[in-house]
Amino acid sequence: MGYGNMTMLTDFYEITMANGYLESGISDEIAYFDYFYRNNPDGGGYAITAGLEQVVEYLQNLKFTDEDISYLRSKNCFSEKFLDYLKNFKFVCDIWAVPEGTPVFPYEPLITVRGPVIQAQFVETMLLLVMNHESLIATKASRICRAAQGRPVMEFGSRRAHGSSAAIYGARAAYIAGCCGTACTISDRDYRIPALGTMAHSWVQMFPTEYDAFRAYAETYPDNCILLIDTYDVLKSGIKNAIRVFRECKPKKMGIRIDSGDIAYLTKQCRKILDDAGFPEASITISNSLDEYLIRDVIMEGAKIDSFGVGERLITSRSEPVFGGVYKLGAVEADGTIYPKIKISENIEKITNPGFKKVYRFYDNDSGKALADLITLYDEETPSGEKFKIFDPNAVWKKKTLRNFHAVDIRKRIFDHGELVYDLPDIETIRDYCRDQLETLWSETLRFENPQTYYVDLSQKLYDLKHELLNDYNRDDLTEEAEEK
Amino acid sequence: MGYGNMTMLTDFYEITMANGYLESGISDEIAYFDYFYRNNPDGGGYAITAGLEQVVEYLQNLKFTDEDISYLRSKNCFSEKFLDYLKNFKFVCDIWAVPEGTPVFPYEPLITVRGPVIQAQFVETMLLLVMNHESLIATKASRICRAAQGRPVMEFGSRRAHGSSAAIYGARAAYIAGCCGTACTISDRDYRIPALGTMAHSWVQMFPTEYDAFRAYAETYPDNCILLIDTYDVLKSGIKNAIRVFRECKPKKMGIRIDSGDIAYLTKQCRKILDDAGFPEASITISNSLDEYLIRDVIMEGAKIDSFGVGERLITSRSEPVFGGVYKLGAVEADGTIYPKIKISENIEKITNPGFKKVYRFYDNDSGKALADLITLYDEETPSGEKFKIFDPNAVWKKKTLRNFHAVDIRKRIFDHGELVYDLPDIETIRDYCRDQLETLWSETLRFENPQTYYVDLSQKLYDLKHELLNDYNRDDLTEEAEEK
Repeated sequence: MGYGNMTMLTDFYEITMANGYLESGISDEIAYFDYFYRNNPDGGGYAITAGLEQVVEYLQNLKFTDEDISYLRSKNCFSEKFLDYLKNFKFVCDIWAVPEGTPVFPYEPLITVRGPVIQAQFVETMLLLVMNHESLIATKASRICRAAQGRPVMEFGSRRAHGSSAAIYGARAAYIAGCCGTACTISDRDYRIPALGTMAHSWVQMFPTEYDAFRAYAETYPDNCILLIDTYDVLKSGIKNAIRVFRECKPKKMGIRIDSGDIAYLTKQCRKILDDAGFPEASITISNSLDEYLIRDVIMEGAKIDSFGVGERLITSRSEPVFGGVYKLGAVEADGTIYPKIKISENIEKITNPGFKKVYRFYDNDSGKALADLITLYDEETPSGEKFKIFDPNAVWKKKTLRNFHAVDIRKRIFDHGELVYDLPDIETIRDYCRDQLETLWSETLRFENPQTYYVDLSQKLYDLKHELLNDYNRDDLTEEAEEK
Repeated sequence: MGYGNMTMLTDFYEITMANGYLESGISDEIAYFDYFYRNNPDGGGYAITAGLEQVVEYLQNLKFTDEDISYLRSKNCFSEKFLDYLKNFKFVCDIWAVPEGTPVFPYEPLITVRGPVIQAQFVETMLLLVMNHESLIATKASRICRAAQGRPVMEFGSRRAHGSSAAIYGARAAYIAGCCGTACTISDRDYRIPALGTMAHSWVQMFPTEYDAFRAYAETYPDNCILLIDTYDVLKSGIKNAIRVFRECKPKKMGIRIDSGDIAYLTKQCRKILDDAGFPEASITISNSLDEYLIRDVIMEGAKIDSFGVGERLITSRSEPVFGGVYKLGAVEADGTIYPKIKISENIEKITNPGFKKVYRFYDNDSGKALADLITLYDEETPSGEKFKIFDPNAVWKKKTLRNFHAVDIRKRIFDHGELVYDLPDIETIRDYCRDQLETLWSETLRFENPQTYYVDLSQKLYDLKHELLNDYNRDDLTEEAEEK
């Protein structure tokens, strides 16, 4: 699908580095890059990963046109050898990734790209852009849908999205994480996200009276007649005109939508009025600057709501609009041997896990619940046996023995030397998988605020490797090396 | 330019309403819709409008393909007559708009669309999406650039943008409002926003030592050698290796970039070390979760910074990622007479200004400063004369007499019956215009926090019309009308 070729949507430094790798004679060195994030948005206990399908599409369409080459030549800083390389560019990397819709946790390598550094480096910008955006919205949607406690949530935010891709793929991510549909029509046409919607205030204003507007709508849409009742006054006119039209036109499916005012009060009143008028089947939809906190609170207050339309606070993830996923070098490979790389930082949080890694999730054989995740080096065996000991890498005295479990490698091989080897699941399969996987998490992890931290531990071997590299890194040595000779 | 046809990027209700207008026999009634916003982002004193060029492009490419028609038919709720209408769709509306880059204020009709309601309604979603997004980023960029007090600010946020359009057009909006360039290469190729960028930490990690990495870079890019010095340790290795390479390679332009740690401390230290080493011309660039507040503070602390790279907090406008522009019906026209429409609300802020309107800006003839804006009805004369009295519509006793002024209608005619009649300015012209117009505002209005509210007054005629309509709206009458007959 896609809307235009995004090969040139890249940070300019990816191109200066690519040219530099070639000029320095190291462009074919094999590098391993990991995509991971450090903090769950909104202080939550997990994130939902999304965007892999768009990353695949981007990678399959990587291509530099003659215009791109001319444009780059005009910058006067790239060699002709490099421009030739781009002209004949063919993607040859390996990729492993967590499937879309998986609940994931900080520091897990959600994607690993292995290949010539000139390529593995280049794809950074779009991989980050796509994964960060869709995972952000999926995570927010997951929180909002859980707040709604089973009531349908519709994604209504296109008009406040950050550009067209944000609307289109935001709708997709929201659907993966549990929304029942979107207002964004093109997302239905192209990605089969069910499009929904009825009327705006302007529809009501275009007719001589509110009653005329409702009546005209009911006559046009007798199968699904949801009336927006707050253009003038919900209780004094809107609900009354709606009931009058329901009586006169007898639509198959009927309901009201309220887009302003006090949700708890108005929905309780409207529910009673509808019930008393003999329309207990008429649904009540609410849509006004909603998010997980407001939805949780109005439900607690006893608001009578059948479904929610959520706009700007979902499509922009307003309370935390940044998903801070990063793309870091984990290893290089020479003559078949993998040499781990670590990024040091003053900030302990920013120190990376070195090496080519795997991620296992332990499930309890009886309850099916997820017990912990374990990051290991690529050549370690799948954890198994009667019991298995794990420990917290940030507090090594915190140990836990797992019994009666099975461990699953949560990543799939996506590309094999540039060839797609993964069957992209359809959107319904992804959505079902997301719902099922969320159910494997304990409610303590799902809590909106101050959730229990889910264990993501390192294998002993990875832990030892990391500390070996940290010890190798000796500030005095570094200084001496940097002194001029 | 553009990336794919966005005709179908529309809220589904725009289509159900369009079909409904046709079925109800009112699709050709002439409607006037206004685009306006209610609050300046971040509690600021103004917004910068951007996105008009993309709106024009969208409108010029409005077209329903056979696939679109088939898709809509499959929804089983649209008439064949309507689908035929879409098949032969030709945009015929009139549009007036404020040019891109103009500082604007709440409640001003920044765009007015006049035309058959079936069309004027339909374009709502994309018009809002584009204008809200680009104005949001332009406004944020304007704040950030002012905080930098003349130092260049580069837009570095693609990887955290909400999808590809957010990166591409966010870079454009940021440039309009004062950024000197972007990391987003495609925005340079397609919109002539200068692309900039040098190296990531992974470049440094790919070489045996930091010195090797810097040296390789300097040899590849002798004309512009900006070295990222915080991969290992800024003061103990980074700055020393940088100086060694500057000495050995003598690049034409040289500088360092720091992406972590304490900005004020590190830049002061590095400035001294560079100066002492004989490189006063070496520039210092900073890039680490910056926004207007942090930039203001580190400059106050005496940090030695030549330029800023600003990422996630600009491209997502993190502190306020929603620009709440709305699109409201202002009037309908029948037989050449314009009938004003008003949207009532419990919330006084949400009551609209009725009618077909104009926006004038008063400039002082001596200082060139903007004195106030005035919203009038379309048929009022341009304010002129020795003195002119205006009043605050929310506090009518607050009056002000303007003298020695000239008034400018700040909107341009963009479309005349569907024909583009506006010469879209090039990006440099827009950027210069934005800078010049910002200079017409008083510093009290430009303040980041608690700025002086800029006057946006209503003409007496518009004020009277609004209150007439508000008085007409009588709750008891409404209730009676809604009672079943």
